[in-house]
Amino acid sequence: MLNICLVGSGGVGTIAALVLEQSRQARVTAVLRSKYAIVSEKGVDITSVDHGEVTAWKPYRIVPSIASAIPDDQNGAYDFLVIAVKALPELMRSLTKDISPLITPRKTAILLLQNGLGIEAPLSEQFPSNPILSGVSMIGSRFTSARTVYHEDPDELKIGAYFHHESSLPREEQARAARCFVEAYSAGLADATAKGTGASCILVDDIVAARWRKLLWNGTFNTLCTLLRISVGELIRSPGRDTLLKPAMREMVAIAKAAGYGHVVDEAVVKQTLEGTPGTSAFRPSMLVDLENGRPIELEVILGAPLSVGRKLGVSTPVLDQVYALLCVVQWTLTRGP
Amino acid sequence: MLNICLVGSGGVGTIAALVLEQSRQARVTAVLRSKYAIVSEKGVDITSVDHGEVTAWKPYRIVPSIASAIPDDQNGAYDFLVIAVKALPELMRSLTKDISPLITPRKTAILLLQNGLGIEAPLSEQFPSNPILSGVSMIGSRFTSARTVYHEDPDELKIGAYFHHESSLPREEQARAARCFVEAYSAGLADATAKGTGASCILVDDIVAARWRKLLWNGTFNTLCTLLRISVGELIRSPGRDTLLKPAMREMVAIAKAAGYGHVVDEAVVKQTLEGTPGTSAFRPSMLVDLENGRPIELEVILGAPLSVGRKLGVSTPVLDQVYALLCVVQWTLTRGP
Repeated sequence: MLNICLVGSGGVGTIAALVLEQSRQARVTAVLRSKYAIVSEKGVDITSVDHGEVTAWKPYRIVPSIASAIPDDQNGAYDFLVIAVKALPELMRSLTKDISPLITPRKTAILLLQNGLGIEAPLSEQFPSNPILSGVSMIGSRFTSARTVYHEDPDELKIGAYFHHESSLPREEQARAARCFVEAYSAGLADATAKGTGASCILVDDIVAARWRKLLWNGTFNTLCTLLRISVGELIRSPGRDTLLKPAMREMVAIAKAAGYGHVVDEAVVKQTLEGTPGTSAFRPSMLVDLENGRPIELEVILGAPLSVGRKLGVSTPVLDQVYALLCVVQWTLTRGP
Repeated sequence: MLNICLVGSGGVGTIAALVLEQSRQARVTAVLRSKYAIVSEKGVDITSVDHGEVTAWKPYRIVPSIASAIPDDQNGAYDFLVIAVKALPELMRSLTKDISPLITPRKTAILLLQNGLGIEAPLSEQFPSNPILSGVSMIGSRFTSARTVYHEDPDELKIGAYFHHESSLPREEQARAARCFVEAYSAGLADATAKGTGASCILVDDIVAARWRKLLWNGTFNTLCTLLRISVGELIRSPGRDTLLKPAMREMVAIAKAAGYGHVVDEAVVKQTLEGTPGTSAFRPSMLVDLENGRPIELEVILGAPLSVGRKLGVSTPVLDQVYALLCVVQWTLTRGP
């Protein structure tokens, strides 16, 4: 049995925990904070496109804090620490320190199940002797109350090792950790695979490439819909499709290309994405949902980080620069306190 | 007695009608549409910083349509037609045609009491033998119900002739119309002047200069507050003050300078405006109030028109270009219908 600790039990983390336990190859210790009391008592009710109706579900163990998740005689060292909290720089800075007692050197692999770009480096610096895995999730899953999860779009997960410190931590050891996680996760998706829901967990060689591919969407659709407070379909039907969205996507392609990822995103992908998004879509992207709920947005990892790469490489990004500056003000309104 | 017709009885138009009638030098025919029945029956209750409490007030005559305002044997030709409707291009295009029967050639002067830039030219083309007057109003006044007006900031009005067709319409004739209107309006402000509220009606030589001066504020504070849905004070306190507002103001100054109005707005005015706007201000500019009420915004005359001038003169406006493109989408959401 793999011993896995999960920090961040939102819509993404909870489904990941369910899948891992379903594999019968892992047991999950979930660190819950605000939801600890209610989930400990009653579990979580999940309505899932992949896994059907699951009622009063609990992972192997629920603990109320990182401190209470520290390995001891009863609960030994973790094979994996899965981080599925929102990718907010300040939160991640403190979390990266706080999780130290959960990490056994040379043993615990850390998986970041988060949005954005450049999120692995701080972990790699802090934990040079541990494999860092990086996951790009395309799931549609959210809490609809303190203990109910609505999972509407299938779990499409790409996992890869973020190869680092290869001189002291053999590349093969890092790759092995990624392979091991993907095998367990895939086993947990057996029910969804049997039903043909489209769920999958794929091991990829270049996870950063997968991040750029997702950023083409997240850095443009997600940010513009948030700023304009409209759905994906409204953006596609509006004059902003051609005046903002298309140029923004081309700017993101230009940055990716300058960063060596031109094979992942190009004009053909832009065209395909624009034409493949129906004007009838009422989908409201994650950042917009955060704004509408008064929660901070994942602006830095989704837009700040690629723009910073672009700036260093001398890429001109007139649309995205202003979108970023405007969303920084939106973030300020969400985080400045009462 | 001056015979004046008013089209557009919102917060600005209603106070203008009150002032003109208070002068005892003018009688006003107000064209009301949605408010015709209620105002005909009960009049308007006005709470005014300049004029105190005025209850059940009605102008000399109220008519339900432009057609019913057409001069006849009882109500002769108009000396002035005051247009105080929102400056929306489509609305103004149809209105410019509709008002023809109200305009007596060589007699009726047309006063535009509206926001923005470039609003006089279509009227000047349509009515080459009539004086066109242009008014820049700094009043704070709005309807708070169908028949109540709250007028909180004093009436500061600048009026000037928009000199046009001078070969056929002597400049002096145009200037005289402006002077005549300002005299009547100033007489109507006597009560406010006696109280020292700060109300004033000033005749200016170059009304286009006054429009650029107001645009420096309207094209920047107004547009950014609308896009970000925050008050003037929040914008000033936010990081957007330096990343968006200041560069946007400098772009507006650059356009004005290229257009020959560098003597009206410059870096000193930018500094003074930024430093003179308190971070405690809860003021929500007119465009934001329109957005919050689901009404179309005055985007073209406030931002589209100066940007078009800038484009022709080769001025670079990276911030305002994106703000405009984004607000075009906002306008689309407000006007696309159900």
